[in-house]
Amino acid sequence: MMAREIVLASRPAGLPAVQNFALAEVRLGALADGAVRVRNRYLSTDPYMRGRMMDGPGYAAPFGLGARIPGRAIGVVAESRAAGFAPGDTVRSMAGWCEAFDAAPGALEKIDTMGIEAHHFIGAAGVPGLSAYAGLTRIARVKAGETVFISAASGAVGGIACQIAKMLGARVIGSAGGPEKAAHLKRIGVDAAIDYKAEEDLPAALGRAAPEGIDVYFDNVGGPHLEAAIAHARPFGRIAVCGMISGYNASAPLPGPRNLVQIVGKSLRIEGFLTANHMDLMPGFAAEMAGWIKAGRIVTRDTFHDGIEEAPAAFISLFTGANFGKPIVRIGP
Amino acid sequence: MMAREIVLASRPAGLPAVQNFALAEVRLGALADGAVRVRNRYLSTDPYMRGRMMDGPGYAAPFGLGARIPGRAIGVVAESRAAGFAPGDTVRSMAGWCEAFDAAPGALEKIDTMGIEAHHFIGAAGVPGLSAYAGLTRIARVKAGETVFISAASGAVGGIACQIAKMLGARVIGSAGGPEKAAHLKRIGVDAAIDYKAEEDLPAALGRAAPEGIDVYFDNVGGPHLEAAIAHARPFGRIAVCGMISGYNASAPLPGPRNLVQIVGKSLRIEGFLTANHMDLMPGFAAEMAGWIKAGRIVTRDTFHDGIEEAPAAFISLFTGANFGKPIVRIGP
Repeated sequence: MMAREIVLASRPAGLPAVQNFALAEVRLGALADGAVRVRNRYLSTDPYMRGRMMDGPGYAAPFGLGARIPGRAIGVVAESRAAGFAPGDTVRSMAGWCEAFDAAPGALEKIDTMGIEAHHFIGAAGVPGLSAYAGLTRIARVKAGETVFISAASGAVGGIACQIAKMLGARVIGSAGGPEKAAHLKRIGVDAAIDYKAEEDLPAALGRAAPEGIDVYFDNVGGPHLEAAIAHARPFGRIAVCGMISGYNASAPLPGPRNLVQIVGKSLRIEGFLTANHMDLMPGFAAEMAGWIKAGRIVTRDTFHDGIEEAPAAFISLFTGANFGKPIVRIGP
Repeated sequence: MMAREIVLASRPAGLPAVQNFALAEVRLGALADGAVRVRNRYLSTDPYMRGRMMDGPGYAAPFGLGARIPGRAIGVVAESRAAGFAPGDTVRSMAGWCEAFDAAPGALEKIDTMGIEAHHFIGAAGVPGLSAYAGLTRIARVKAGETVFISAASGAVGGIACQIAKMLGARVIGSAGGPEKAAHLKRIGVDAAIDYKAEEDLPAALGRAAPEGIDVYFDNVGGPHLEAAIAHARPFGRIAVCGMISGYNASAPLPGPRNLVQIVGKSLRIEGFLTANHMDLMPGFAAEMAGWIKAGRIVTRDTFHDGIEEAPAAFISLFTGANFGKPIVRIGP
């Protein structure tokens, strides 16, 4: 059978363009003994991928030019010549942006979907959801009654972070771009929504939303949001840094917050984290999230892009703010 | 009796000048019942005072114009009309830059000098020493075998931090300005000394001193040192921020580190602290430090400025790098 895939054609400069990617086709021959053939259903697009499209030193190796974009994917076993996998099984892999692939069993994780849709396992019940959970509970250590500020609050991580922070008993302030997103934040229960694109003065807007300051900032974007959060942090505030997407397409490094010195006077802690270091939480978290979704306690709103050829556009939408929730590439029937 | 004092004459713009201060004289009449009269011997000058010379919001109230500069001081009781204090007792207070003062007992802390010189109780065995100790043990949580980078390493806090980090079993890299200070760092036992004034490329110099990276950075200065530390931090590195003196005289806020995004990929923690929040450690720490000084395990090299009229110059020397260790104002005889 033939399977299409997306390869990295050139390294992006600034905002990635569809021309940085190319569609290729590979032939899958007869399935080897001991291998499993998977048809992908949902492909993940994530901000961290931007960094790996660049060459040079980083915390992970750069993506290879001409090679398939790796990344998380949810698929269904089409054929199996390995013990433990049968046609119809749902699996998660790092196979990336391809329609189908053959893999050794060790590269596949069988998923019990626990009654929720499979795409959640690269979303609310997958790494993005766990990022929100680990950032709030292990890094920021949110306590009931605290005020939590969350940027990119309608995004894949931010949207879940808002709702988990509410469950933890916090007052939640979410920031997102545009009136539609701000309205959505109110629907998912945040106490105050900031449409940062409509605000001339983001620190002032945060000050109005949190007149007594914030205890926690869950940072997805860096830049002016981080500076505003430091300005309004209360003593012993914590800033959990999940990402700083505002700088990912910059051609030169952007300066950090001009008010960083306030971390001394206010005894603030700014801590970055990788969800990869918190995967011990995943089994318990995924089961809990499946229950929350079934009970309607967590509401998701992801954006589906149909067809492997749409993967580059879905990825680029992460940086243009065109998506609600997670941009997910959906394949086949 | 008459006592001279230093008052804030005007708020400094940029680097403070002696013209921002004025010498005044006050008359102490007959000592009131229940009060204690103290002759100061040693006055503390500290970087944090710069922030409080400015007007505007901060974590502590600004110093009053025309009022005596408050600050820690070590004195000797000259006369007492209060129970528990007798002439000759050594006391620590926040009385600030004055030759003598009358105080209620509650404003005085009687000091057992434990066989070391009294000035150490505003230095190695006082808040600066405790800043080093708390920053290394409570904030950075240094472990044996780790590599620790310390800026302003010949200063009041940095010099003690270098030696305590060695006791904790760390490899220590100190940075200071000028060959004399760098040579001093080697004498107090640091493993590698950087004369940052002689380095064109501070990150490269740190890379040579710590080819495998650093686990902890004890920050006294902010600015390029902080950026270099982030660049060379190993995964799960910790940055304890005691101060950011490089920006204290800036007329506009300085940008933060351009590589702050690395805190995500390397899971770094940057945490500011105030020693005021760690005073529970002081009694045990002071006793331990007195033992270390007597045993020669901690070496101090402070700079004495004689006479109350020298307090402004002593303070200004904090920002020009003219001092070794702590600039201490010493008052007669």
